[in-house]
Amino acid sequence: MKLYIGVDLGGTNIGAGIVDEEGNILIKDEVPTGASRPFEEVIEDMAALIKDVIEQGGYTISDIESIGIGSPGSIDKEQGKVVFANNLGWKHAPVCKELQKHIDLPVYLENDANVAGLAEAISGACKGVQNSVTITLGTGVGSGIIIEGKPYSGSHGVGAELGHIIVQVGGVQCGCGNKGCLEQYASATALIREGKRVAKSNPDSLIGKSVGGDLDKITAKVVIDAAKAGDEAALEVFDNYIYYLAMGIVTIVNAFDPSVIAIGGGVSRAGDFLLDAVKKKVDEHIFYKDIPYADIRLSQLGNDAGIIGAAMLGRL
Amino acid sequence: MKLYIGVDLGGTNIGAGIVDEEGNILIKDEVPTGASRPFEEVIEDMAALIKDVIEQGGYTISDIESIGIGSPGSIDKEQGKVVFANNLGWKHAPVCKELQKHIDLPVYLENDANVAGLAEAISGACKGVQNSVTITLGTGVGSGIIIEGKPYSGSHGVGAELGHIIVQVGGVQCGCGNKGCLEQYASATALIREGKRVAKSNPDSLIGKSVGGDLDKITAKVVIDAAKAGDEAALEVFDNYIYYLAMGIVTIVNAFDPSVIAIGGGVSRAGDFLLDAVKKKVDEHIFYKDIPYADIRLSQLGNDAGIIGAAMLGRL
Repeated sequence: MKLYIGVDLGGTNIGAGIVDEEGNILIKDEVPTGASRPFEEVIEDMAALIKDVIEQGGYTISDIESIGIGSPGSIDKEQGKVVFANNLGWKHAPVCKELQKHIDLPVYLENDANVAGLAEAISGACKGVQNSVTITLGTGVGSGIIIEGKPYSGSHGVGAELGHIIVQVGGVQCGCGNKGCLEQYASATALIREGKRVAKSNPDSLIGKSVGGDLDKITAKVVIDAAKAGDEAALEVFDNYIYYLAMGIVTIVNAFDPSVIAIGGGVSRAGDFLLDAVKKKVDEHIFYKDIPYADIRLSQLGNDAGIIGAAMLGRL
Repeated sequence: MKLYIGVDLGGTNIGAGIVDEEGNILIKDEVPTGASRPFEEVIEDMAALIKDVIEQGGYTISDIESIGIGSPGSIDKEQGKVVFANNLGWKHAPVCKELQKHIDLPVYLENDANVAGLAEAISGACKGVQNSVTITLGTGVGSGIIIEGKPYSGSHGVGAELGHIIVQVGGVQCGCGNKGCLEQYASATALIREGKRVAKSNPDSLIGKSVGGDLDKITAKVVIDAAKAGDEAALEVFDNYIYYLAMGIVTIVNAFDPSVIAIGGGVSRAGDFLLDAVKKKVDEHIFYKDIPYADIRLSQLGNDAGIIGAAMLGRL
């Protein structure tokens, strides 16, 4: 059984694990990123973490095939560089080369959302299909596009940003500079924003009550739980959320026509309540009514997707 | 030099030509489709046309490597079937098998917009790049997506329908059943619809004047020519058209990040007047400001793209 190291490089923590060729994590650990430090120091800590995980597992470097890193931001795969990552504060950072100063193994680099999509494709919700899209509904909307079994990130490493497909020209202002991006309607942040809005105008709503009137405590879960309980204001927010999410998914079907679309991220913890509502709405709005289209599923790997997918870059 | 037959199967005419391996048409001809007839009769005429073109060129069947067909509708490439094509009235039509009853050559089948994209990728505006998207601004908005040099049409043959990405949730009703599809804002039909609307409310506009007040004579060219001449009402329509087209292109960049986006179809005959306006607007709205993104160009092959791209299916 071949073994691979996967590194999930985040703004807060760096996770690393040993993953077998079927996508199972054998052992993992994490350290704080300390992203404000010089880039070289962060990579030094990453190297130490990797060595530590290998030792904890009772292995040596020679047991490992390669290291894969999932990083936020736009990536130059060929050069092994993070071109630009806002929440690391990095520009043109030669991550692979720097890590190889500490560990003599092949190092692969890919965007974190693409890596999570790859993990779902190899051992999660999209296992066994060639074309899939994993969308992550969290603070933003991330996406990993897998085409013919490989992460697709376009010609300049700026693609697969499905959170920034424009679904409402002239709509809600997005951090990217445009208006009406999917992210502004389908992220947890959007759900919270709309939950706050209706809780304010409907003081009797369960949304506000369940946080004791402290609207800053409203989370995506609060809004969804209130909708599950049948609260009218929460259902209005939830239905509108589902409508936009479904329109985003219809757009993904019409553009990419994958075999599976997996939904992950914090909002996906709503489970079948979310999934059933989305599937129903997509089905009502699909273009070719009598041709099969993507099966919509919940992601399966949660936070482990980052380590698994990064490790599997070495298996491609 | 290897030779290939390309067939451009349309609702009105069937075109066929002999194409060399560099994508040059050596000879071509066409016959009416007569799409209302039984499917087998249409294919019989297609076979006769192919044989005729081969003879006109002074060749024999044995000089030809393969036949490629570009067809409207959704395609099952593996089975060589047109699954559903509205303007041919075909459902589950086994085109490749039927044609092989008449001509003993390998036959490939692909969606016509994907084929046009392939032609531009091989010998047109997208020559030399691996990832490109060709969008066709005509009665509708068609698209051909090329990924790693091959047409991408997804898992069920229903993808690459970028005319039906939703850019305005709840917007203008589309024939596909949804509201707010790009096609409703960026097609020639949309430009004509909006041209008529403003000509009606602005009787002094050059749009109405240039058709002698007969608003049914308004074409995309009429609207664009009036905008070129500086007519205020026409410029309002044109600017709004460019805005939506640019938002569609930004979405394509954020989703696919191709090297080149080529713009074809009737509206693209407006040339640099259109191209310069679109490029300016996309540049204002692009996500990653300091990373290169797709070069936007005019398509080069016009109506020949159908025959060239279909022929080149045999070269993949």
